[in-house]
This record gives sequence, structure tokens and C-alpha cells, in this order.
Amino acid sequence: MLSRDDDNFEKVPLEELAPDAETYLGLVAYLQLEVFEASSIAVANSPDISSKEALTRMAKLTLDKHEAFVAEIRRKKRAPERLMEPFTPTIDAYIARISSDDWHEQVLSVYLISGLFDAFFSELADGMPGNLAKYAKDVLADDTGRAQVATLLQQEIAANDGLADRLALWGRRLVGDSLLVCRAALVSTPNDRSDDGAIEPVLSELIATHIRRMDDLGLTA
Amino acid sequence: MLSRDDDNFEKVPLEELAPDAETYLGLVAYLQLEVFEASSIAVANSPDISSKEALTRMAKLTLDKHEAFVAEIRRKKRAPERLMEPFTPTIDAYIARISSDDWHEQVLSVYLISGLFDAFFSELADGMPGNLAKYAKDVLADDTGRAQVATLLQQEIAANDGLADRLALWGRRLVGDSLLVCRAALVSTPNDRSDDGAIEPVLSELIATHIRRMDDLGLTA
Repeated sequence: MLSRDDDNFEKVPLEELAPDAETYLGLVAYLQLEVFEASSIAVANSPDISSKEALTRMAKLTLDKHEAFVAEIRRKKRAPERLMEPFTPTIDAYIARISSDDWHEQVLSVYLISGLFDAFFSELADGMPGNLAKYAKDVLADDTGRAQVATLLQQEIAANDGLADRLALWGRRLVGDSLLVCRAALVSTPNDRSDDGAIEPVLSELIATHIRRMDDLGLTA
Repeated sequence: MLSRDDDNFEKVPLEELAPDAETYLGLVAYLQLEVFEASSIAVANSPDISSKEALTRMAKLTLDKHEAFVAEIRRKKRAPERLMEPFTPTIDAYIARISSDDWHEQVLSVYLISGLFDAFFSELADGMPGNLAKYAKDVLADDTGRAQVATLLQQEIAANDGLADRLALWGRRLVGDSLLVCRAALVSTPNDRSDDGAIEPVLSELIATHIRRMDDLGLTA
């Protein structure tokens, strides 16, 4: 029975909802790999070399994060492929859903979803055992090159009539699909609390940060 | 007047044909960026996660090389975009010519052309002033992950009837287009020797190494 009384709707610390370390590592490693792929598609479609450079840094950032998690999996003597494999259907379907032929939408996707997932997995990391919590938070905190991509987006929005409206719409679409991935990270684990409302405040916070990111770009979320 | 006598066909050291440092840096930086893009397309098209991992290392390798040359351009207080810009028409056209919808061809392309260009620019580096020669050779010598891509190709060739023939054909096609890029690197510079036959032995050597790489994969060049 789900009670929606305020008293029962307090925020549960995200670490209480966290999956086990192997699930966490496999999921975050594969997600970074897929965000890297999305970034490199945006690199390849760049209309000029300075936007290409900004996006290349974003590709490097996500690739470095992927490699850092793969290295951690190897240190735990597990095969990275085996830990990532279970998440390929969910994540591949997600990436396919948010893919676009439009370069501006590609850039916005990479910028917003990398921010959203880095924040989400950084909070989840608090529930990780031993040194993994600090290690994961350190890896995810790196934001080298993100400011340049924000600047690139702001310039494009200023230079292209109608782009702000289109990207605002795209940003709203992204958040729904991305939150489904976050939810998937929290279910099917021994701590599964997906049915008791504990997840909702976590997702609300992610949405709030997403909206702030869109505001900073001059987009109405 | 071009004499084809053996005496006049001795190998000229490649450094004598080398372009100036800025041309060299802009060209090698942009080429690595484009090989990175080709690698990441191969990553995105990987049918399974272990081939994806092998190709991700290749993407990282080429991206690291690109970034190393960009860093060197910045140390020389030049804008990377400005030094790379002049080569975008040639290289973009080249990448378009060697692009393929077939994943195996994508993987072979990345493997062979990165090897060919690393060898070529490493030799050219001998003609670079100051510390640049050693710096460039060190950057280009990194071959982390290449062995895994070779293994991946060998496994695919063994597992797929007819693939060896198709890739052999593809490898032969690649070499011609790639040598045109090398030739472009040697012309339009104060040292332009493109008309006196001095370039031919250089290109012959590149072809020989390319053939060895194909042999190692079990492909008839």
C-alpha cells in the first residue's frame, strides 16, 4: 500500500537504494562507453573544426571515465565484458531512442545526459563498499571540457533562429528516457525499493539539476 | 627530366622531404583526429561487447595521439584549429573515400591506416626541428591495443567464409588512397620533391610495411 503522505515521502539516501558493486560498475562502465559513442558521432558530424575540438574533449572525458571503471573491474579480477553485458539491451535501446540525425540535438544529448548520469552515479557511489565510493566519485567529478561544450551550445542557440525552441523540446524528451535508465539501475537488486516511492525524490532531484543545466543554456525546460 | 636509372633512384632520407613543423603538426593532428572518428564508428558498429572493447582501445590510442599533437601546437602558441584547417578538404575527402557500411572493412581500415600513418609520420619526424622530432616519434610509437585489434581481425577472418578475400581486396584499395595523403604531406612545401622521383622509394617502403601487416592477418595483399 503506497502512502503519499508527506511524512512517508522523505528523501531516502540514495546509497540505501544502491545496487551491488558489480552491478554498479558494469552499468556505469557501459553507460560511459555509450555516451562516448554518442559523443564521437557528434564529433564526426561537426560542421567546423573548432566545434569538433570542443566535442573531442567531451569524447575523451567519457572515454577516460569508461576506461577508469574498466580498470577497476579488472583490479577486482572480473571480466569487464561480463559485467557490462547484462545492461547492453537496456542501454542500447535507450541510446537508439535518443539518437538523432540533427547535430545540435546530438550535442545537447551528450551534454545533458553525461551531466545527469555523472550526478546520479556519483550519488549512488556513496552506497559502494570500501574505496570504490571515493574512486567512483573522483572519476565522475572530472568535467574537463564540459564548459566548452556549453559555450558551443550557447553560441549555436544565439546564431540559429528557432533552435532554442527545438532544443528545449529535445531536452524535455531526453530527461524522460534518461530517468528510465536511472530507475533501471535501482531495481532488480536486493535493495529494490522501486515500488515504495523511495525512488521518486531521487528522480525529482535529478530533474531539478537537469532543468538548471537547460536554464544555463537559455533553454526553457 | 626524370631519369629512372638505378643510380638516380637511391633512397632520399625522408627528413629531406619533410614539410615545416607547423604543416607537419597540423596535418598529423588532424589525421589522428579523423582516424579516431573512424575508430569510434567501428566501436559503435561492434556486434558484441568484447570487440567493442578492443576497438575502444584503438579509439583511445588515436585520440591520445591527436591530443598530444594539439598540446604541442598550443605550447608553440598557435591555434590548433588554424593549423589543422588547411588539411580538412584533403583528409575529409580521403576519409569519405575509405568509409564503408561494412563493419569488418571499418575495422581493417582503422587498423591498417593507423599503422601506415604512424610509420610515415614517425619517419617524417626526423626532419623536424628541436625536440619535436623525439616528441613526435614517442607519441607515434604508442601501439597499446593494436595487438588486440589484430587478434580480433584474425578471429573474424577465421570465423567468416569469404571474409579473407573481401578484406584482401579492401586492404589493396586502402593503400592507394592512403598513399595519396602521404604524397600530399610532401608537396606544396619548400622541399617539394614530388616531381623528381625522390618520393617513390619512401612510398615503396610504406607499401612493403602495409603488405607485411596484411600478411600477418592472413590476407593476400
